[in-house]
Amino acid sequence: MAKRIVTRSERIYWGDCDPAGIIFFPRYFDIFDRTTTAMFEQALGMTKYEFLKAYKFHGYPMVDIRAKFLRTTRFGDDVVIETAVPDFKRSSFDISHRLLKNGQLAVECSETRVWVSKDPNDPEKIRATPVPQEVIALFAKLGA
Amino acid sequence: MAKRIVTRSERIYWGDCDPAGIIFFPRYFDIFDRTTTAMFEQALGMTKYEFLKAYKFHGYPMVDIRAKFLRTTRFGDDVVIETAVPDFKRSSFDISHRLLKNGQLAVECSETRVWVSKDPNDPEKIRATPVPQEVIALFAKLGA
Amino acid sequence: MAKRIVTRSERIYWGDCDPAGIIFFPRYFDIFDRTTTAMFEQALGMTKYEFLKAYKFHGYPMVDIRAKFLRTTRFGDDVVIETAVPDFKRSSFDISHRLLKNGQLAVECSETRVWVSKDPNDPEKIRATPVPQEVIALFAKLGA
Amino acid sequence: MAKRIVTRSERIYWGDCDPAGIIFFPRYFDIFDRTTTAMFEQALGMTKYEFLKAYKFHGYPMVDIRAKFLRTTRFGDDVVIETAVPDFKRSSFDISHRLLKNGQLAVECSETRVWVSKDPNDPEKIRATPVPQEVIALFAKLGA
Repeated sequence: MAKRIVTRSERIYWGDCDPAGIIFFPRYFDIFDRTTTAMFEQALGMTKYEFLKAYKFHGYPMVDIRAKFLRTTRFGDDVVIETAVPDFKRSSFDISHRLLKNGQLAVECSETRVWVSKDPNDPEKIRATPVPQEVIALFAKLGA
Repeated sequence: MAKRIVTRSERIYWGDCDPAGIIFFPRYFDIFDRTTTAMFEQALGMTKYEFLKAYKFHGYPMVDIRAKFLRTTRFGDDVVIETAVPDFKRSSFDISHRLLKNGQLAVECSETRVWVSKDPNDPEKIRATPVPQEVIALFAKLGA
Repeated sequence: MAKRIVTRSERIYWGDCDPAGIIFFPRYFDIFDRTTTAMFEQALGMTKYEFLKAYKFHGYPMVDIRAKFLRTTRFGDDVVIETAVPDFKRSSFDISHRLLKNGQLAVECSETRVWVSKDPNDPEKIRATPVPQEVIALFAKLGA
Repeated sequence: MAKRIVTRSERIYWGDCDPAGIIFFPRYFDIFDRTTTAMFEQALGMTKYEFLKAYKFHGYPMVDIRAKFLRTTRFGDDVVIETAVPDFKRSSFDISHRLLKNGQLAVECSETRVWVSKDPNDPEKIRATPVPQEVIALFAKLGA
C-alpha cells in the first residue's frame, strides 16, 4: 500500500546558509521539525500550543534520526518537503521526510520520536506515554 | 507623506521558543532579515542569490539596530510584519519593521544597513559601495 | 565612577557565519544572551536553571535593545565580550556589552531586560516582578 | 585497536532549549559541527578559516548522519563530547561523536562528510576532491 504523503514548501534563506554559500545542514532539522509540527497541526486541527494542552502531553522529542544529503540547497531555493504520515507505535512514532529541489531529491530523513508527558512524581522529568487513540484516529483521516 | 509599507506573515515555531515558552528574542532578527530580503526580492524581481550577482555586490550587513519588544509571541502564533520601504542614502539604507500579533504591535525595529562589495584590492575585505540607481528606481515602484 | 566589567571570550564558528563569510548578525545576540547568563551565574553562584528556581522567577526577557556593528567578525575569530555589571531598576535592569576582536571594538550593545514571574492568576502569562534585593546584593560583590 | 579520542566540553544554554525546557535537538548538530572543526583545527594547527585556504578546499559538507538520543540535556548542563579521530577515505571521512552528561552517554552520532573544492569549470558548483595526504598525516599524530 502506498504511504500517504503530505507536502509543504519552504524557502531557504541567507541566514540558513554558511560561508560555502549552501545551507548549514542542522537547519534542515529545523525545517523537518517545523514540517512535523505542521502535519500534526493539520491532522489535529489546532496549533502545537493548543494540542499540547488538549492532549495533556509535553512534546515528541527525537530519539533516533538518520539523514542523507544528496544535493545541496542554497539561499533563494524553494524546496518541497514530502512527509509520510506517521507510523504510530505504542508510545512513539516513525516519520520520514523527503526534501526536493526542482523536483529532485536533495535530502531524505527518517526519525523516531517518543510521546512524552511530565512525570507525575517529578514534574522536572519527562517520560514516555501512550499516544492517544484519538490522535491516531485523526491521523487516519489525514491525506485519505 | 505616508510611508509605503509592504507586509508579510510568518508563523512562530517551537524551535524558535525558549524554556519560558516564548520566542527567544534573537529569532526576531532572523525574521526581520528574511523580511528585508523578501522585500528586496519583490522590488528587484529576483532572488537574493540572483540580485547579488546582477548588481555585483556582497550584501547589506547591519551597522545599527534598535528594537523594542512590547508583547510576547509564542509557538503557534501567526505574526504580520509591516516593513517600510527602505530610505536609501548614498551607500546605506534605513529600514524599519513592525511585527504585529492579533493586530497589536509586538515588536518594532529600525535598522541601518550598508551596501557592500568586495574590496578589489583585497577580496577578503568588504567595503561600502554606492547603492545602484537602478535599485533605488525599482524600489520607487514598490507598493506605489 | 568606573563601571565594573566582567569579561568572557567566545570563538566565532562556521555555522554562525553567512554566505558573505562573516557572522550573521543575529548570532551576536545569542552571544550576548549567553554572556548575560554567564554573568548572572557567576554573581549568584549557580546555573540559570538553578537560579530561576531559587528566586522563583521566570527569566529576564528583552524589552529594548540597541546595537552598533563597527567591525566584522568571521569563523575562527576569538572575540572578547566586556559586560558592565547590570544597573538594576525596580523590576528591570540595563546591561551593556562591548565585543572586541584583536583588542578593537567590533560591536557594542545596550539592553533593557525585565524581571518576570508567572502571573499567579494565569500561569500562561508572565508579568514584571521586583528584582530580589538578594540578587542586587550579590551583584554588588561581583567584580568588586 | 582502540580508536583515538579527542574530548571537548560545552555548556548548554537557555537559547539552545525549547519550551519543554530541554535542548532543541538540531542544536546538537551545531555542537558536533563545532567539535569536528575544533578537531581539525587542533590536528592542522590553524583555524578553519586558515586551513580552507592552506589546503585550497571548500569545506566538508555532510552526506550522511545518524544520531541516537538517550538522555535529555538542558540549560546549565556541562556536556563532554568525545570524538573519534576521522577515518579517511579517498574523498570523504567518517567521524563519530559521543556526548556525555555527568559521565553518562546522552547522544551518539556518526557522520560521513565529503571533502569538496570548487569546480574549476563552474565556481558556483562544488565537487568531491581527494583528502590531501598531508591532512591525513597530521591527523595520524593527533591523540597519538
